[in-house]
Amino acid sequence: MINGNILVGAAEHVGEATFRAVDPATGATLDPAFAESGKAEIDAACALAAAAYPSFSETDLTTRAAFLEAIADNIVAIGDDLIVRAMAESGLPRVRLEGERGRTVGQLKLFANVVRAGDFLDVTIDPAMPDRAPLPRPDMRRRNIALGPVAVFGASNFPLAFSTGGGDTASALAAGCPVVVKGHPAHPGTGELVARAIQKAVADCGLHEGVFSFLPGTTHELGGGLVADPRIAAVGFTGSRGGGLALVKIAAERAVPIPVYAEMSSINPVVLLPAALAARGAAMAPAFVQSLTMGAGQFCTNPGLVLALAGPELDAFVEEAGKVLAEAKPVQMLTPGIHASFEQGVAALEKHDAVTVVARGCVGDGVNQARGAIFRTDAAQFIADAALGHEVFGSSAIIVACRDQDEIAQVIAGLEGQLTATIQHDAGDEAMAAMLVPLLAAKVGRVLANGWPTGVEVSHTMVHGGPFPATSDGRTTSVGALAIDRFLRPVCYQSLPEALLPPVLRDANPWGVARRMDGKMTPA
Amino acid sequence: MINGNILVGAAEHVGEATFRAVDPATGATLDPAFAESGKAEIDAACALAAAAYPSFSETDLTTRAAFLEAIADNIVAIGDDLIVRAMAESGLPRVRLEGERGRTVGQLKLFANVVRAGDFLDVTIDPAMPDRAPLPRPDMRRRNIALGPVAVFGASNFPLAFSTGGGDTASALAAGCPVVVKGHPAHPGTGELVARAIQKAVADCGLHEGVFSFLPGTTHELGGGLVADPRIAAVGFTGSRGGGLALVKIAAERAVPIPVYAEMSSINPVVLLPAALAARGAAMAPAFVQSLTMGAGQFCTNPGLVLALAGPELDAFVEEAGKVLAEAKPVQMLTPGIHASFEQGVAALEKHDAVTVVARGCVGDGVNQARGAIFRTDAAQFIADAALGHEVFGSSAIIVACRDQDEIAQVIAGLEGQLTATIQHDAGDEAMAAMLVPLLAAKVGRVLANGWPTGVEVSHTMVHGGPFPATSDGRTTSVGALAIDRFLRPVCYQSLPEALLPPVLRDANPWGVARRMDGKMTPA
Repeated sequence: MINGNILVGAAEHVGEATFRAVDPATGATLDPAFAESGKAEIDAACALAAAAYPSFSETDLTTRAAFLEAIADNIVAIGDDLIVRAMAESGLPRVRLEGERGRTVGQLKLFANVVRAGDFLDVTIDPAMPDRAPLPRPDMRRRNIALGPVAVFGASNFPLAFSTGGGDTASALAAGCPVVVKGHPAHPGTGELVARAIQKAVADCGLHEGVFSFLPGTTHELGGGLVADPRIAAVGFTGSRGGGLALVKIAAERAVPIPVYAEMSSINPVVLLPAALAARGAAMAPAFVQSLTMGAGQFCTNPGLVLALAGPELDAFVEEAGKVLAEAKPVQMLTPGIHASFEQGVAALEKHDAVTVVARGCVGDGVNQARGAIFRTDAAQFIADAALGHEVFGSSAIIVACRDQDEIAQVIAGLEGQLTATIQHDAGDEAMAAMLVPLLAAKVGRVLANGWPTGVEVSHTMVHGGPFPATSDGRTTSVGALAIDRFLRPVCYQSLPEALLPPVLRDANPWGVARRMDGKMTPA
Repeated sequence: MINGNILVGAAEHVGEATFRAVDPATGATLDPAFAESGKAEIDAACALAAAAYPSFSETDLTTRAAFLEAIADNIVAIGDDLIVRAMAESGLPRVRLEGERGRTVGQLKLFANVVRAGDFLDVTIDPAMPDRAPLPRPDMRRRNIALGPVAVFGASNFPLAFSTGGGDTASALAAGCPVVVKGHPAHPGTGELVARAIQKAVADCGLHEGVFSFLPGTTHELGGGLVADPRIAAVGFTGSRGGGLALVKIAAERAVPIPVYAEMSSINPVVLLPAALAARGAAMAPAFVQSLTMGAGQFCTNPGLVLALAGPELDAFVEEAGKVLAEAKPVQMLTPGIHASFEQGVAALEKHDAVTVVARGCVGDGVNQARGAIFRTDAAQFIADAALGHEVFGSSAIIVACRDQDEIAQVIAGLEGQLTATIQHDAGDEAMAAMLVPLLAAKVGRVLANGWPTGVEVSHTMVHGGPFPATSDGRTTSVGALAIDRFLRPVCYQSLPEALLPPVLRDANPWGVARRMDGKMTPA
């Protein structure tokens, strides 16, 4: 089922097979070898995507929703082969990947529902007012249209939910944008399986073959070439800050700049408020360590920073967290590269003069396993060295003891943009919590109370985004229904006769969508 | 009433008075001299804006709407002094400026209504599902919050509606963003009068003084310094392509990049379809020339490009348009610089080998007056030289004769992004019109039929935007209710107790806004 070819529309390109996936649990390379996509494939995929755009962007809502559901069904139909291959390529356990498949399928179905509802079109009609003085008002109608072909760069840490058929692809297709995926080199086989499921859905639904292409590869030339292609209209990316900023730069320097939605880095501050810390500090420690070490901490929303007032209550929390972590089993990381980078980040903190090591997790007996790490410092030291606020991707956290409430606020004010911020609060913390919530909201896309930031709900409310550098565009989210908005733009039609209007804007409302008429919402 | 000072919050800074407005009708300089805002004023205005942000962004909807209406009232209350000063500084006639004042006031009132309705907050609630398997769903609530302080750069061609108190300022304030205006040097007195009206509204409404500052000046250091200031979160700009792109570059190179909404250049293609041209070609000519020469063509939506099939019908239209233009009186332009630049652009076309001059307007007896210009070429020549598709700001248009329908489509496909596109169609043009509308929609923010693009309605449907380089962000509009979205970002609140939630997200819906509950819209 996996042959390492490049999928360009309905066709397969047999490229020079240059790279293989690596099983991070053994270091062994896996069959088959995969083709490196080059300039010819970028050009062919983008040409097909541009050719598919006019018809695909105007598919009716039923057709487009059915297409998203067909992708979901086809992914499920791959069966256990998908899970087995993803396990081998990512080192992630079966239960996690089965859950992630469910999430991926659920995400496609959510967007099918979003498409059917049609609210994303934001249909707005201002009827003509021929008798208005001093000038008559023309008939004006507005809807959103798809931006154009979208390039998607998947993440290593969610080989299903944030990769080939993940949130960026689902939301771009839902918007009516053809998608060209740059296949992630860490899970090329998983990518190919999902790509074939999408390719089959395109054919089954009778859509233009250019709606989807899959370009596996390892080179910067592939990623850069795709973003630079004049037919690409937007980019979705999940990954490192360096990688995301490189794409942002290429996109900004094009003759026609395009938006890049890069979800990059976040240390997800958690503030333990005094009453909560006193009442349940020791009890919180295991939950914190679990959130920190789950999946080897390879989550965008991993809690990498804990803030609290210095004192015996914090000391007790730190001690207990250290004890729990010291017994935590090491967890397989996704790739040798990610593991090396994690070890390097942790080693730098271990050697840092202003930081003490609270605990490390158990030493494993395999390769590429993450030993969790908890560090401690104080607010003055944390503020003095910006490097202490940089993400170490993996299960590494730094606990910052603050002198008083003002110092907590000061640390927060100095933070970069984040995906999430969390408060642990209890009766007695009301005033401090009320002060903190707006400060934290100004820095993040999501504020949580009495929970842990890992676990990202795919819903209408989710904001998996946040101010720079958490993402390159803090006005957006890459998870949840709102993600579709990233790939749309408004177009106004003035004085067009019915026959020339797109169907959704016609008087009879043939698509049955909610409309704002003369400023007032009328339901579907 | 006008003293040339810099308005920083509630205070006046007496700077070094270095520049004066020029009456373009006479070339004479006007009193008083105006202060040049420098680094100290940028710093003070941005510090105040940042200080105002927490309270202003959380003002309740009634307070914020009343503030916008107070600005409108205060602008009206300036009375005729505003019109007289604006006439002297812009050369625009009284009737136009009175109309523009009405538009400016209407715009502020539209945003007051948008604020009161509260839909812009996009309140979305997914209630907790404690019994959901395998994992319970937490209570999640989302709303939009203001991005932060916004820098506004006004346009010369609308000293009221697109300047100090114009659409960018109105929509940013409506979103809850403090505003720092970089005063336009072509109409500093008009700017100061409006700025004082806004400053007074801030005080009257009891808001933080940092909600608004006005920094007059002429230097690139002022504009660049304002965009580079780390406290500025977004930029609104209307003006030249060079100016807009310079600000985009500065914003992209900041440590924390920010969005720039620059509305830059557009030649607004008009396609005359064969049946329409045959039936009413001669009749369309005066309307075309009127749209072209109104306000000396100093509109973003001026029709600078006409496409039609070559033949006697087009020749008749061209001849008639030439006749009408040859009798058109010259019109005062806004500034000597704009006039010089218009003359330079027209002279280049006059000398162009591939272009013939159809007609020029009458020669005037004053200074800085625009003589309209209509040129003609064919599609092959137009496609061969990209310079023919560049905007000449003012009443200059080029008519392009095309061999057939395919060649019209080819010219359109090669166009840069535009604000508008227009078709003139009639019975018999149905098939061609149906082919053209989607092609044109892919290039523009607004498609018109049987009208002319000048005249931009301030409404819920308006899209005064379009793909690059018409604007720097084709996902947005700078006119109409949707303009508020530019200055917002979503924040999700997970498992927060009622007391910690922003009021608008609380169960009781104390602000009475429409909410999406579990995916379903519930009206206000």
